Amino acid sequence: MARTLFKHGTIVTASDTYDGDVLVDGELIAALGPALEVNVDRVIDATGKYVLPGGIDVHTHLDMPLNGISSSDDFTTGTIAAAFGGTTAIVDFPTQARGESLHRAFDSWLEKAQGKAAIDYGFHMIISDFNDQVEREMDELIKEGITSFKLFMAYPDRLMLDDSAIFRALLRTGENGGLVTIHAENGSVIDVLVRRALAKGLTDPKYHALTRPARAEAEAVYRAIAMAEMADVPIYIVHLSSAEALQVVTAARDRGLPVYAETCPQYLCLSADSYEEPGFAGAKYVMSPPLRDRDKQVELWRGLARGDIQVVATDHCPFRMADQKELGREDFTKIPGGAPGIETRLSLLFDCGVRQNRILLNRFVDITATSPAKIFGLWPQRGQIALGSYADIVVWDPARQMTLNADSLHMRVDYSPYEGRTATGMPELVMARGRVIIEGERYLGKPGDGEFIKRSGRTN
Amino acid sequence: MARTLFKHGTIVTASDTYDGDVLVDGELIAALGPALEVNVDRVIDATGKYVLPGGIDVHTHLDMPLNGISSSDDFTTGTIAAAFGGTTAIVDFPTQARGESLHRAFDSWLEKAQGKAAIDYGFHMIISDFNDQVEREMDELIKEGITSFKLFMAYPDRLMLDDSAIFRALLRTGENGGLVTIHAENGSVIDVLVRRALAKGLTDPKYHALTRPARAEAEAVYRAIAMAEMADVPIYIVHLSSAEALQVVTAARDRGLPVYAETCPQYLCLSADSYEEPGFAGAKYVMSPPLRDRDKQVELWRGLARGDIQVVATDHCPFRMADQKELGREDFTKIPGGAPGIETRLSLLFDCGVRQNRILLNRFVDITATSPAKIFGLWPQRGQIALGSYADIVVWDPARQMTLNADSLHMRVDYSPYEGRTATGMPELVMARGRVIIEGERYLGKPGDGEFIKRSGRTN
Amino acid sequence: MARTLFKHGTIVTASDTYDGDVLVDGELIAALGPALEVNVDRVIDATGKYVLPGGIDVHTHLDMPLNGISSSDDFTTGTIAAAFGGTTAIVDFPTQARGESLHRAFDSWLEKAQGKAAIDYGFHMIISDFNDQVEREMDELIKEGITSFKLFMAYPDRLMLDDSAIFRALLRTGENGGLVTIHAENGSVIDVLVRRALAKGLTDPKYHALTRPARAEAEAVYRAIAMAEMADVPIYIVHLSSAEALQVVTAARDRGLPVYAETCPQYLCLSADSYEEPGFAGAKYVMSPPLRDRDKQVELWRGLARGDIQVVATDHCPFRMADQKELGREDFTKIPGGAPGIETRLSLLFDCGVRQNRILLNRFVDITATSPAKIFGLWPQRGQIALGSYADIVVWDPARQMTLNADSLHMRVDYSPYEGRTATGMPELVMARGRVIIEGERYLGKPGDGEFIKRSGRTN
Amino acid sequence: MARTLFKHGTIVTASDTYDGDVLVDGELIAALGPALEVNVDRVIDATGKYVLPGGIDVHTHLDMPLNGISSSDDFTTGTIAAAFGGTTAIVDFPTQARGESLHRAFDSWLEKAQGKAAIDYGFHMIISDFNDQVEREMDELIKEGITSFKLFMAYPDRLMLDDSAIFRALLRTGENGGLVTIHAENGSVIDVLVRRALAKGLTDPKYHALTRPARAEAEAVYRAIAMAEMADVPIYIVHLSSAEALQVVTAARDRGLPVYAETCPQYLCLSADSYEEPGFAGAKYVMSPPLRDRDKQVELWRGLARGDIQVVATDHCPFRMADQKELGREDFTKIPGGAPGIETRLSLLFDCGVRQNRILLNRFVDITATSPAKIFGLWPQRGQIALGSYADIVVWDPARQMTLNADSLHMRVDYSPYEGRTATGMPELVMARGRVIIEGERYLGKPGDGEFIKRSGRTN
Repeated sequence: MARTLFKHGTIVTASDTYDGDVLVDGELIAALGPALEVNVDRVIDATGKYVLPGGIDVHTHLDMPLNGISSSDDFTTGTIAAAFGGTTAIVDFPTQARGESLHRAFDSWLEKAQGKAAIDYGFHMIISDFNDQVEREMDELIKEGITSFKLFMAYPDRLMLDDSAIFRALLRTGENGGLVTIHAENGSVIDVLVRRALAKGLTDPKYHALTRPARAEAEAVYRAIAMAEMADVPIYIVHLSSAEALQVVTAARDRGLPVYAETCPQYLCLSADSYEEPGFAGAKYVMSPPLRDRDKQVELWRGLARGDIQVVATDHCPFRMADQKELGREDFTKIPGGAPGIETRLSLLFDCGVRQNRILLNRFVDITATSPAKIFGLWPQRGQIALGSYADIVVWDPARQMTLNADSLHMRVDYSPYEGRTATGMPELVMARGRVIIEGERYLGKPGDGEFIKRSGRTN
Repeated sequence: MARTLFKHGTIVTASDTYDGDVLVDGELIAALGPALEVNVDRVIDATGKYVLPGGIDVHTHLDMPLNGISSSDDFTTGTIAAAFGGTTAIVDFPTQARGESLHRAFDSWLEKAQGKAAIDYGFHMIISDFNDQVEREMDELIKEGITSFKLFMAYPDRLMLDDSAIFRALLRTGENGGLVTIHAENGSVIDVLVRRALAKGLTDPKYHALTRPARAEAEAVYRAIAMAEMADVPIYIVHLSSAEALQVVTAARDRGLPVYAETCPQYLCLSADSYEEPGFAGAKYVMSPPLRDRDKQVELWRGLARGDIQVVATDHCPFRMADQKELGREDFTKIPGGAPGIETRLSLLFDCGVRQNRILLNRFVDITATSPAKIFGLWPQRGQIALGSYADIVVWDPARQMTLNADSLHMRVDYSPYEGRTATGMPELVMARGRVIIEGERYLGKPGDGEFIKRSGRTN
Repeated sequence: MARTLFKHGTIVTASDTYDGDVLVDGELIAALGPALEVNVDRVIDATGKYVLPGGIDVHTHLDMPLNGISSSDDFTTGTIAAAFGGTTAIVDFPTQARGESLHRAFDSWLEKAQGKAAIDYGFHMIISDFNDQVEREMDELIKEGITSFKLFMAYPDRLMLDDSAIFRALLRTGENGGLVTIHAENGSVIDVLVRRALAKGLTDPKYHALTRPARAEAEAVYRAIAMAEMADVPIYIVHLSSAEALQVVTAARDRGLPVYAETCPQYLCLSADSYEEPGFAGAKYVMSPPLRDRDKQVELWRGLARGDIQVVATDHCPFRMADQKELGREDFTKIPGGAPGIETRLSLLFDCGVRQNRILLNRFVDITATSPAKIFGLWPQRGQIALGSYADIVVWDPARQMTLNADSLHMRVDYSPYEGRTATGMPELVMARGRVIIEGERYLGKPGDGEFIKRSGRTN
Repeated sequence: MARTLFKHGTIVTASDTYDGDVLVDGELIAALGPALEVNVDRVIDATGKYVLPGGIDVHTHLDMPLNGISSSDDFTTGTIAAAFGGTTAIVDFPTQARGESLHRAFDSWLEKAQGKAAIDYGFHMIISDFNDQVEREMDELIKEGITSFKLFMAYPDRLMLDDSAIFRALLRTGENGGLVTIHAENGSVIDVLVRRALAKGLTDPKYHALTRPARAEAEAVYRAIAMAEMADVPIYIVHLSSAEALQVVTAARDRGLPVYAETCPQYLCLSADSYEEPGFAGAKYVMSPPLRDRDKQVELWRGLARGDIQVVATDHCPFRMADQKELGREDFTKIPGGAPGIETRLSLLFDCGVRQNRILLNRFVDITATSPAKIFGLWPQRGQIALGSYADIVVWDPARQMTLNADSLHMRVDYSPYEGRTATGMPELVMARGRVIIEGERYLGKPGDGEFIKRSGRTN
């Protein structure tokens, strides 16, 4: 296979920073040196650039069916967009339909991805229906490389599990080594609020947010952590959005509990103000949890900086405004929930975080690549620039500007939540398992390059 | 009606202490003076004694049906025992059976009590089945003097409501002025733990406690408070038992939320050590929540002293060891849960609390009479020694010892959780609505003296 | 002596509320009845009014010398103003000058007060110079009825004690039963900030506030409480002004420590916005601690409501704008610190607190009369409407408006911090030790009516 | 210069772990490869071993004068012992005597170290006397590579600064980029407790601990952080010993403040139980802060794991029992305070921490090398295994046992606090700036190899 040499870059890991060359041999990183003199097929000049481990996005929903439609990015368009943004691996969510087996969902998602993905992908399994059979399947899936599960405390009519099921699933991971991740919002309370809003004729997009209070998230986070504590297992909170919920996580970690939390760029860089955009425009931001008040956003940044939040993922789940979000014009509950983000994660975080001195550069690498890799069993093969690890490498230009408009981005969706903004800092070149797949504006790979990742257990 | 004069006592209220005489005219307190010279039917010498407002026990279960048996005290034996202990009013719990109307439960409990009770009684209504009809009935009951409701987060098979129902009930009290009280334990989690214990053959009484961890209580308390916060209404936690749960209450009150909490003498004066008694003796202490570890008990006392716990009630719910608790000899889940306590509340609290300098004398009055009266709409007619209030009066001898053995107490049950202990401080004489009903060891009233109390709303 | 009968009032104590008559015989309350028929010298009709225990202001500075001037109210004008506002007893602060004995300060203050005070007065002793001799004097003063001491953590050049002295004084109270009260601001830090401000030419009144940050108060509160905890004694924080400092008090009380805190109406009803008044007007509000940001003021109200703050006193220390505050026109450090308040305490608290539903009526009585009496050894003779207690009684008209302008108030000072505002709720009549001293707009007593109060120890 | 190749080791950084070879060329790390084939002077086989960045001990007291004696290790014996333990750089403490200039202290310590140290050394400057001149010297020292300062809140008679001085020093670092480190114990309180103990004849070593309560540490930590917050600068707490103090640090970090904390192996692996050793043996453990109760020790481990404590240093300050500690046989205040530890830091932390699953291997590297390097301006030249960094490398044998007895260790002191214990995990070989200085039991370097490190500012 080909050999590539990255010359003169500044290599950045989750803890260290140094200048040097990186030799890639085939799929792996083969050497690190100050001025390696070797025969290679290609030399890439990284002078003045950062050389980073490829981003790992552990929260994506590609080709996700929802009430008869699907999220607008499939595994091809979504993973190419991810690559353009500097992400070289994702973990997506097969979803067990109620009554279905987990393996059936696994097969179904494999089918969506195989031969189509541009970068490697793993799976968390969404359990929407829990029983003895599913419990046994959990053990099997872990052996097959699906080592984490997602349970919902929201969406009573489709996905929500009751506390018995959640607690049993948690207990099971204490035996099989899996990790439970949780969508933490109290769906029962939200359901009542939603019905009351609709009964009053309050149907605009902003009522999506007003019927999902931050305390409903904090409550579910407290409950999830309490159940994990009683089951004596770790737990991972997905897309934590509010200062109120973070406070619960922080208190639990201060007590010494193994609790992990993930947030997303939208909760760091957007706010509930967006729901006030005129007409139906607020629908662009309909997602769960919703965007929160701007004045407490600084708390999330502090949580990232001090380590109480370990991961930034995207919850990428795009729906077109023209014909998909539109379905909820008369009723916010009909708006498919989710927003695009798989491409813009690193740039937004670099721009709003590193450049604003809210997080350090090493921490940026940690939360976008290293910690997600460790927590979800992708490490040490991924998530680090290190000998023997996969050559998932991003040459990052800290000065180059990414325009965040829908038409200049590569995600298959007709709007951007950041329309009109730019972010400073973006990839110049992206290598995945030794192959250059992005170079400037060109995609050089082909769908199907990406393979299923059989993950191990947590090492963090 | 008769006129009575209490002479030379030390009158103690929730805030004040002073020496003086109390004139009772008919049912009411008619005058307070240092040396009243009036014509009366009887003079009671209270020299060296405290003159206290009669105790109010807002948590009793008399004649309560449970799986084919009933709690062993009915409204006659239970209220006579209460009176012997210095309690002159109770609030008991009619229980809606699933499918039944609230009014039917009300009628059924009225029938149990009318003509039988020795002291006055009010009712909280237990809602086990929530729907639109029940929602409307809540409004009606409030007008009929049942101004508080009890909802269960435990007992999935009989009583537990889901969060939707609880939240709707809370919202309704924001409109009708009622107060929701909560049995806060996560029944779903406990159910799983119980089934796992039984599956392992762990059937002894102590597994009742080991399958109901303190964190399951703290979780439910957090959830209940969060729902009340989102509904913007007050909430009252019954029989709070653990430091973990108290910490949640304290944090909520520190944030300014109107949260009330009640604990019981058993959580203050007994501990989980009792489950280690030999043989089946641990069954005496099977109640929910269970007794907790001794080392954190001091936290409950502190919570009482600083005001984060406002009420001490009993959760009196006795079952005989011989033929009732016995039903669970082979399986702790078959042990009827509950313990006797209606008679010993004041003496235990005086002995363990006032005499040990854990709470002040005025605070003792506050948590046993004044605060429960205010929170549950019995005040100012009850809960204070004041002009125009009912003459519910206890002459308290701080030096007299109550023997806590089953055979010397008046509750209709064949054991005492405090067997072999004594408590210093007990009533010498008890007057209810102007009538002396207890004098030393004699009961002077008659069943049926007690009447239904039509309660108002909260004034605290 | 004279006998007086208050008819038809609503009697309010710290816990109870009831309608009835109050008979006063000589200096004492002699009877409470629903319709007392007795021969009296005077009948006072209290129909539609509250009958309250007289207010107790435990923080006043009358005739206080400061850098060559004195606070503008002496014991005559100040106590008459107090009486007009419904206050029937004060505790003022003799101040030990450095090098002086405590007894000399005591004598000096007795001289200021004797024959001049219109209401009774007690003393806390300010210790500015601590040594073995002073330590022994503490014991003696306690026997003479000065049972509390005030120590300063601020004002390094005049009053501040170092931690050794404070800690020794605390330890001593563990032996002699006294109570240490603390002015908690870090004077060393403030001193540095002040010198830096002056060095930059920042001399306007508002820099008084900007050089005394809330964290400097919170720090001193933490330190004071920590020292009390290590000495195993209670402690009382005077004039707590900030949410930051309250948070420290709350945390300590949550841990079970016997910590007491007092705030003042100015911290509840005014804010730092006042420093922005044009020209030199900000000098009216120069006091220590300074007024704080409005947005956190709600925290103080919550602290009062839930019991973490037990007392509202005034820190009454008026200086005239015309010739006294004026001394600091070119340099805020030369502005004599303090503001008038002895007359307006009850009305402000009733108006902003009770009428705004921030505190209940009984709590209003508690924090203005009963709790200060208990904490500072004035109870049960004062602070309650009860048989045998002094007849310190206020007939309170909840509807009558007090105009808060300097020229309509009775304090001897040429401005009011509340100029142009009114407060609803004020005394109609005030009785002190059985004598009516205020009736509407008339002062009926005479200077010298007030006597020294020999206080006991804490009973709370 | 020489070239060395480490073959087949497992390289461990603060975030990454991977197998590979490390090429050292002269003083620097020159290449990292999976199987480097290069000409070198020496090949070191690291099969089955960890290859770690050399430890950095940022808290040592070598050749420290104290009341006429000196700590028993000088820069030669101390740094050789450090090297045996895997430490390749230290930061020691020149101490300004009162009245002396900072430069004089700097010169004096340079003299102690130059030509004697076996490994590189930097200096923090202890300021014991603060004034305008010293303030200016701070700026100069920072330019000369002494970028951090240590201030004492304890030892009133020798080292303690008052809050004015501390606050001024903090403010200065806001301008000159220095970092203040703090010995946080309330010296005034401790002084009173000590005098009271001596007055009662309590002279045994254990009274050293009993007169330095954990709350005195927590108080000083709160105060130090509050002052840093008001000065708007970071702060670093040295040798944090108690759960109480950690709780304050955690709360501050939860609020987003840039607060750093260091603990030491003795607070993690020993406890106050040691003071109960018979006779005068407790003197071995006389240090400040003292050893704390065992039951709260787990909190420190949790603080390390979650990141609220960033550094483990030693506070190495040995005194011989025979003739130095002995001075305090009749009076614990005469016992020179301090204990040996420079050699055993890594092994104790590996044994008690990594092997007990309290911290992960990467975290072990972080807290012993990378974080101290970043916080104190030694990074990226030190603290990481990375291209271009100094070849400060430890080959760590995770299975080799270090015997912790005084006679098998290399520190120049006649006792070990860990006598009779072993620790699993210790260095097999240590390289400092490219030179192998330790190999098994042999020291291969020479005194004077170590050079003064001119440090930069904080990069964390």
